[in-house]
Amino acid sequence: MKKRILVIAPHPDDETLGAGGTIAKYSEQGHEVTVLVVSGHLPPLYSREDYEITVEEARKAFVLLGVVDSRFLEIPATMIGDQPVHVTNASIGDVVKEIAPHVVLCPFPDRHVDHRVVFESVMVATRPVAAGRGIELLAAYEALSETHWNAPHIEPNFVPNWIVDITGQIQRKLAAVACYQSQIPAFPGARSIEAVNALATLRGTQAVFAFGEGFHVIRMIG
Amino acid sequence: MKKRILVIAPHPDDETLGAGGTIAKYSEQGHEVTVLVVSGHLPPLYSREDYEITVEEARKAFVLLGVVDSRFLEIPATMIGDQPVHVTNASIGDVVKEIAPHVVLCPFPDRHVDHRVVFESVMVATRPVAAGRGIELLAAYEALSETHWNAPHIEPNFVPNWIVDITGQIQRKLAAVACYQSQIPAFPGARSIEAVNALATLRGTQAVFAFGEGFHVIRMIG
Amino acid sequence: MKKRILVIAPHPDDETLGAGGTIAKYSEQGHEVTVLVVSGHLPPLYSREDYEITVEEARKAFVLLGVVDSRFLEIPATMIGDQPVHVTNASIGDVVKEIAPHVVLCPFPDRHVDHRVVFESVMVATRPVAAGRGIELLAAYEALSETHWNAPHIEPNFVPNWIVDITGQIQRKLAAVACYQSQIPAFPGARSIEAVNALATLRGTQAVFAFGEGFHVIRMIG
Amino acid sequence: MKKRILVIAPHPDDETLGAGGTIAKYSEQGHEVTVLVVSGHLPPLYSREDYEITVEEARKAFVLLGVVDSRFLEIPATMIGDQPVHVTNASIGDVVKEIAPHVVLCPFPDRHVDHRVVFESVMVATRPVAAGRGIELLAAYEALSETHWNAPHIEPNFVPNWIVDITGQIQRKLAAVACYQSQIPAFPGARSIEAVNALATLRGTQAVFAFGEGFHVIRMIG
Amino acid sequence: MKKRILVIAPHPDDETLGAGGTIAKYSEQGHEVTVLVVSGHLPPLYSREDYEITVEEARKAFVLLGVVDSRFLEIPATMIGDQPVHVTNASIGDVVKEIAPHVVLCPFPDRHVDHRVVFESVMVATRPVAAGRGIELLAAYEALSETHWNAPHIEPNFVPNWIVDITGQIQRKLAAVACYQSQIPAFPGARSIEAVNALATLRGTQAVFAFGEGFHVIRMIG
Amino acid sequence: MKKRILVIAPHPDDETLGAGGTIAKYSEQGHEVTVLVVSGHLPPLYSREDYEITVEEARKAFVLLGVVDSRFLEIPATMIGDQPVHVTNASIGDVVKEIAPHVVLCPFPDRHVDHRVVFESVMVATRPVAAGRGIELLAAYEALSETHWNAPHIEPNFVPNWIVDITGQIQRKLAAVACYQSQIPAFPGARSIEAVNALATLRGTQAVFAFGEGFHVIRMIG
Repeated sequence: MKKRILVIAPHPDDETLGAGGTIAKYSEQGHEVTVLVVSGHLPPLYSREDYEITVEEARKAFVLLGVVDSRFLEIPATMIGDQPVHVTNASIGDVVKEIAPHVVLCPFPDRHVDHRVVFESVMVATRPVAAGRGIELLAAYEALSETHWNAPHIEPNFVPNWIVDITGQIQRKLAAVACYQSQIPAFPGARSIEAVNALATLRGTQAVFAFGEGFHVIRMIG
Repeated sequence: MKKRILVIAPHPDDETLGAGGTIAKYSEQGHEVTVLVVSGHLPPLYSREDYEITVEEARKAFVLLGVVDSRFLEIPATMIGDQPVHVTNASIGDVVKEIAPHVVLCPFPDRHVDHRVVFESVMVATRPVAAGRGIELLAAYEALSETHWNAPHIEPNFVPNWIVDITGQIQRKLAAVACYQSQIPAFPGARSIEAVNALATLRGTQAVFAFGEGFHVIRMIG
Repeated sequence: MKKRILVIAPHPDDETLGAGGTIAKYSEQGHEVTVLVVSGHLPPLYSREDYEITVEEARKAFVLLGVVDSRFLEIPATMIGDQPVHVTNASIGDVVKEIAPHVVLCPFPDRHVDHRVVFESVMVATRPVAAGRGIELLAAYEALSETHWNAPHIEPNFVPNWIVDITGQIQRKLAAVACYQSQIPAFPGARSIEAVNALATLRGTQAVFAFGEGFHVIRMIG
Repeated sequence: MKKRILVIAPHPDDETLGAGGTIAKYSEQGHEVTVLVVSGHLPPLYSREDYEITVEEARKAFVLLGVVDSRFLEIPATMIGDQPVHVTNASIGDVVKEIAPHVVLCPFPDRHVDHRVVFESVMVATRPVAAGRGIELLAAYEALSETHWNAPHIEPNFVPNWIVDITGQIQRKLAAVACYQSQIPAFPGARSIEAVNALATLRGTQAVFAFGEGFHVIRMIG
Repeated sequence: MKKRILVIAPHPDDETLGAGGTIAKYSEQGHEVTVLVVSGHLPPLYSREDYEITVEEARKAFVLLGVVDSRFLEIPATMIGDQPVHVTNASIGDVVKEIAPHVVLCPFPDRHVDHRVVFESVMVATRPVAAGRGIELLAAYEALSETHWNAPHIEPNFVPNWIVDITGQIQRKLAAVACYQSQIPAFPGARSIEAVNALATLRGTQAVFAFGEGFHVIRMIG
Repeated sequence: MKKRILVIAPHPDDETLGAGGTIAKYSEQGHEVTVLVVSGHLPPLYSREDYEITVEEARKAFVLLGVVDSRFLEIPATMIGDQPVHVTNASIGDVVKEIAPHVVLCPFPDRHVDHRVVFESVMVATRPVAAGRGIELLAAYEALSETHWNAPHIEPNFVPNWIVDITGQIQRKLAAVACYQSQIPAFPGARSIEAVNALATLRGTQAVFAFGEGFHVIRMIG
């Protein structure tokens, strides 16, 4: 049975860093993956040009990963929390309603304020009522660097309880990450290709396969 | 595809209280459910007769739930922890090896010392190496009373992240629980039929269906 | 000795769902219960009419439960967090000052943003200084659905350490819940009468009496 | 109404360090306090003489605090965990049955293995069934030094949610602590009189009174 | 080697209460301590005069403690969170950039909303990128009263994993605290001199020296 | 100033996997590193020959890492917990007394029962009294596989708050790991060289240097 997967990214690249291999795998298996990008590198902190570049990069990455549909809400970076909660909730809720997904993958509430605000809105939009009733699995991915910069034992710390085997998809994931030239620093940057590869190796070998992606299962309904 | 499900119970009745509806559902769907009962109401705390009664009750419940195979390790209640850890690990590990399950359901480490010792041994037996590599899902069920008697915020407290819809199985679950005449107290006992029904209603309505069973997902591999 | 009890509800119905039996019990024992409702179903998300209906329902429920005094701050739903923190703190703080309560019951910080904002303001208003010095017990109640929709192991999860025996008050609690016709869905809704009954049964039987309400004790002074 | 209070100490002095002021206060109010001392400074780690000294000191402290009854189970220090769990459970359970307490104060599960083993047995003996049904309040006290030596964020860390005002009892508490000449080191020892006084001042001023004792409420039934 | 220490205080007095002894010790050892005060007792909640008084008090305390440099951002108390996150982040980030500290001491995210907002901004400003790469140690201090008023087991609770021996600095710390005449209440106030002394004694004797200050290590790089 | 470092390993290879780079770095800096190996691959679960092989491998690794002294307590694997607690405490305590270390690195309490038992004994032996008073830093390392197999959100989960830059030592660490031919599986084994390298890359890039080792600081005294 074909399933609808909704991956929600605070900014372009989070979806690929956190769930690129899993997106590619769902897509290979014939499922339909939509990516919703909530915020972007927009003024006042960035120029419109910066934004266009990252969107261009995202589109290339989405093609590589087999994403069939994508949405960009265009809220300026770090400012999602500056609009009323019910507005953000409605924007994300509308997409959930329209897509009616079986699986939702969202950011972990971490060091980047936008990740937290998006996480909270996703939690509201995916409650098991109305549009949320068809969701079979809701899980949070880890975003290299920001997720690991939460203060240990003060803020929530990421510990995966779901590992997806992406051994067959690792090359595509790395290629998709490489699309984000404006975002990915050189080694030893926390989001360098080498770091991405290391995290995939660690998550994979934890479950004794070569490459993996780790998720925190929030709600599974079966 | 037919799957093998292994449900591990510290004592007879834990498997039915914690996962009876899910066992019945797996069984209806054509999967093969085995129950491993680790301990029993044996001397010195109980008489051999007590033990035989609970085994008889268990067998009736297993038939109702569609369990195809069951094992009884016959270690006296409260005394599993008195044998060397590697012996317990081996007993449980051998069954995991033999069954090669796709899904393992185990007790939550709670107020009953046997539940903790069994939990720990299951954690060893299900590591994703050797026999454990084929396990796709490992989750802990809640055992009414004992699980809710863990000291709040000192010991681990049960919060489900997986809810199984057992609306179609609730009658069979209640009937199976009723088989355990020697174990199930009258209302308002913590394991009374009314309490079982209330917990199923709460877990179900949390996810907006009528009856449910809640689990803590420990490791999902996909 | 007659005590003053202050129950703080983000929206009308939270107080009854979370603490209706306990309110009724305090009232039966001759204590004085005041309910403070902070927010309401007001524009822009709701119409003024919606609001009036819920207030009407609340007043009926309050009579049934023996509430002697109630206040409605009339801040629009989901928008408490949009006013400056010190304004919300002052509104709630003024009521604490005026009532000088011995017991304060407040919402658990859960999936509804208003519950969190109210929780935080109550924490400020009940600090053991000035007006707060006379408070003997501060505890959070669980609000069916929202409290159980916090993300497991990421957000705080409700685990009660105080159970009130409401066996003698369950009928009145259910009747009070039923007053909220505009708010309470049919079974298997997460706030259906059946769910309310199930939660009361579970909390009661955990402590081996018929019906109960569970609270998280935050500060007890004795 | 006169209440029965049972204070359970792993070793003589824990009860006074952790709850001496509260014991004195209960006693002043006309309640009946029993102390159960589970272990002692006995061979092989200590001499019988060492043990007799501490018992003598305990008896003096108990008189000062107004303890009406005391029991000494005489299990050698660090070795409670070496006897079968059901034996320890039975020893403690029998006292609970006999005393039928309204309030039970027990050690927090901390760095001393005996504190953990006693904590676990108390958790079993005070379950709200049979003899446990009359218990209205179960709380854990903090034992200076050992409780604060739990590994932060790995083992449970003590955070009080109940503060008892012992301003009127602090002198008696300090005098009772001073009885334990063989156990209490000079300043800056972790259990020195100065440390005891400092902890009482901190717990008191947290709630804005002069001296206090902090507890972790485990189960309150009301 | 001379190090640069940056201590960040939400309001004047937090730095002295939380880290006064450690500041004095660093200063004695020849290191350079800068204090950044983010907020102040300013309108609308306070008068400008109130503010000037606290700044005057702060300056006296800083001289006593050997602080070489201080900055006051002058954001009105309780209102830091009312400006956009990126503005606060930039203000604090600029100071981190300019000072290029080896050690950063910041508030624990506790009951005062300003402490939380400052904590979050410090977490962003001290990420191990750009200006943050030279930071060897980032730790949170405890602010008497507010830190201990976090809701137990709902909000993060302070448990120190780093204790600084301030036996040689306790007199200077107490003198510096005494400079804050407008802020420090009489005993048994939660921030009274007696409470400060008690906390220092407790933290010290936990590690078996006379007086100490406790910190929560967030990130140490070595 | 030359410091004494004590690294405690449940079994040979844990010290190298968890802290090999840090050991090499301390040694390069002129500090004196001692390794205490508590258990071994001994009968009944292993043959004496198995044991000799791992000891031989350990000695080679120790030479590479610059370890100056090592001890082997020779307790059979999985059976440390079968001897009385005070015996294990004394064995480890004696070594702490003799070495009088400034830094102690110990295992995290994880999925291997020996790791837990050793952790607990180290916690006792390193309390800040007597021999423990000179310890400036006590931290737990992560042991690939076992540490990551703790049940998420039920058992303690490893989150590092101290990262050591081992960029200059990574080659020696990998060479030392390679000495353990009998223990290290091929990729994608959880303890394969590739997994070791990935974890070092992840821990390093988290702090924006090339290779790192992560620790959980338990107690720092300064």
